[in-house]
Amino acid sequence: MSTQPRQLRLGAFMRPVTIHTGAWRYPGAYPDANFNFAHMKRFAQTLERGRFDAFFMADHLAVLNMPVASLKRSHTVTSFEPMTLLPALAAVTEHLGLIATASTTFDAPYHVARRFASLDHISGGRAGWNLVTTSNPDAALNFGLEEHVEHDERYRRAREFFDVVTGLWDSWADDALIRDVESGIFFDPDKLHVLDHKGKYYSVRGPLNIARPVQGWPVIVQAGSSEAGRQIAAETAEAVFTAQTTLEQGQSFYADVKGRMEKLGRPRDHMKILPAAFVVVGDTLDEALEKRARLDTFVHYDSGIASLSIALGHDVSGFDPDGPLPEIPESNASRTSRQRVIEWAERDKLTIRQLAQRIGGYSGLEMVGTPTMIADQMEAWLVGEGSDGFNVMFPYLPGGLDDFVDKVVPELQRRGIFRREYEGATLRENLGLPRPENRFFRA
Amino acid sequence: MSTQPRQLRLGAFMRPVTIHTGAWRYPGAYPDANFNFAHMKRFAQTLERGRFDAFFMADHLAVLNMPVASLKRSHTVTSFEPMTLLPALAAVTEHLGLIATASTTFDAPYHVARRFASLDHISGGRAGWNLVTTSNPDAALNFGLEEHVEHDERYRRAREFFDVVTGLWDSWADDALIRDVESGIFFDPDKLHVLDHKGKYYSVRGPLNIARPVQGWPVIVQAGSSEAGRQIAAETAEAVFTAQTTLEQGQSFYADVKGRMEKLGRPRDHMKILPAAFVVVGDTLDEALEKRARLDTFVHYDSGIASLSIALGHDVSGFDPDGPLPEIPESNASRTSRQRVIEWAERDKLTIRQLAQRIGGYSGLEMVGTPTMIADQMEAWLVGEGSDGFNVMFPYLPGGLDDFVDKVVPELQRRGIFRREYEGATLRENLGLPRPENRFFRA
Repeated sequence: MSTQPRQLRLGAFMRPVTIHTGAWRYPGAYPDANFNFAHMKRFAQTLERGRFDAFFMADHLAVLNMPVASLKRSHTVTSFEPMTLLPALAAVTEHLGLIATASTTFDAPYHVARRFASLDHISGGRAGWNLVTTSNPDAALNFGLEEHVEHDERYRRAREFFDVVTGLWDSWADDALIRDVESGIFFDPDKLHVLDHKGKYYSVRGPLNIARPVQGWPVIVQAGSSEAGRQIAAETAEAVFTAQTTLEQGQSFYADVKGRMEKLGRPRDHMKILPAAFVVVGDTLDEALEKRARLDTFVHYDSGIASLSIALGHDVSGFDPDGPLPEIPESNASRTSRQRVIEWAERDKLTIRQLAQRIGGYSGLEMVGTPTMIADQMEAWLVGEGSDGFNVMFPYLPGGLDDFVDKVVPELQRRGIFRREYEGATLRENLGLPRPENRFFRA
Repeated sequence: MSTQPRQLRLGAFMRPVTIHTGAWRYPGAYPDANFNFAHMKRFAQTLERGRFDAFFMADHLAVLNMPVASLKRSHTVTSFEPMTLLPALAAVTEHLGLIATASTTFDAPYHVARRFASLDHISGGRAGWNLVTTSNPDAALNFGLEEHVEHDERYRRAREFFDVVTGLWDSWADDALIRDVESGIFFDPDKLHVLDHKGKYYSVRGPLNIARPVQGWPVIVQAGSSEAGRQIAAETAEAVFTAQTTLEQGQSFYADVKGRMEKLGRPRDHMKILPAAFVVVGDTLDEALEKRARLDTFVHYDSGIASLSIALGHDVSGFDPDGPLPEIPESNASRTSRQRVIEWAERDKLTIRQLAQRIGGYSGLEMVGTPTMIADQMEAWLVGEGSDGFNVMFPYLPGGLDDFVDKVVPELQRRGIFRREYEGATLRENLGLPRPENRFFRA
């Protein structure tokens, strides 16, 4: 009797086009992709060819608050809005999951429930909702609030928001719409529930004016890593995007969140934990390292030096950019990131400029190497319970995406840890998640 | 020297699938079209083949408040949400304008500005925003408000909302995004404007995190007919959907609104007035009348009798449904609609049941006849300044739409009053509307 090895789940982090600050300047990149739908369509179709679980679109509700010197160099400053982009991508793909961020602090539960339900119907069951509480204080100023809502308060609101949204999704029994042409009865009124929610933060009558989503509920995604964030994830999330930079950190996060689920009586495999991984593929290690280094050369010193100072907990803008990093006194503020930067500086013999470019470009978990090396790393995380897969970030587009799909995916498939064909028709089925029962209408 | 005759503009009123209550039961109809994207795609592509200006999706923010007896028979109860459906249709069409309703009472200006700007980029300049103040009091209960906002207050808010949204659309100069790969400058900071709006109802800092829309602004559409509605339309609208039931009424509305524009210094042709027209096409008049009558047989008596009583200003539910309409005393409540119903009853010799089915199905302006007769009527409205075109409602789908495109459109084209090919690349260009200047960055 053979058992299938644990399967890797792969999301693609596609906001905005790619995460790396220098990516739009990489040879062959599409600098205008933020507003060029044809490019987005090509990316989505390539991801589908590579059997990715989902296209994930993060979001901001403001222009990022950065000094103008770095902002003007940032291709992340403006791009398509996720809930309008994803339906368009739904129309040109068949299997790819479509996950968007929506804020529980700056949107209304009725709107959020409705739009995700609609996307789920349009896409035939491929929608996912990344529930965020929005930590960018500039967003508050775009929504009539002088002060940003405080962290824990945001999470209490988020929890109730979640209850309202899922309650609205359950407004209609799955079989409520009869559409009996003969009798003229369009739906069975006994299968329509009026939510009548009156809570601490929200008062929402319902019912939702959208039939129950194809998936019952769109897949619930979260990305918070604070205490409150982990707890709400354990209670509600079915996929978690996280930012663990080492396997040990990943294992600790994985054990913590899955442990919380167990305490709540939720089966551990009803949530997929997917750390962000920045993947640079080369036919040789040298080629991969060269691509990685080349990418950093497209990051302007101005965009990186402030980030480097923050990571070190020490202002280094006064030092010679082309000299080595001098000894930096310890600070309590950011011990982990400080340590990582110092290790990089020593290992790769980087100048302050190069360090600034590294940090200003991207500074989370990365996998740089041959397809075999990358598959080894991914497998180690999977087998070692550091994750259930990854939310992949491509270093530049379309090249970095093409390389991953053409070179890494076949290696993962050869090892039997990644699908060759989509298992199901919906995102939920592909992720191996159960379909939620309707709380008002038990089957 | 020949001058081109005035050109007809045609929108398609597609919410939800079609307006007539019995339409989903008509032979050949798609009862599941509300949640079947393949059908919506077919409709949109047919409209494009027929050179329609736009697909218009109306909206409600609640399940319609009707007695269950009629609600359960209504295919309008639940369907796709417009701002998720239209981007999906954008991906499968090339020329068709895409107009959605968004509420100034229950949504935030930053969200509305962003989504319509995004749709405009996704579609290459084909978005339109139907600005509504939302008159359905049930909507308030889905957004945490116990009482609905009062009518004139809604319009004052709407006016400020409009200023904020258009101000946000002007956040970026048209040429702000330089994307200079060589220097690494993505945009020119001097071409980004922070709105910093602080008004009576809204406080919105900006800038919008979406580049200026392809059309400058998506086309501004309105549908209000009250005093406040006409005035805000004259001030801001570029297309007006209206519900005038006779040419005389149409002429009076047209003269009034265009007169208001002139007083404000706006050229009259910077707004297209498009009354709703329910069009039933037959190869003979008899065939068209038979289709029309057949359609009404699919409306249940329960769905019509309440509407009939309201239209007459008198409860007629106690009379014999299969007898003629008895003499109804005059009432002040609804003189025009009462008169129209009595005329129908006499002219078409309708029983109370048939009248109820007529009123319960659809009761606005209709054009029933051969392609020539319909083109005659449309031309009379156009030449007589009753309208600039129509927002066409199809009696059932796909048949009623196919008939219009295959039979009426060629007749309109033959007369030289409707395009054979799209004139421009954007909705604005096809409608013959100017591109708004950016108030912060004059060219």
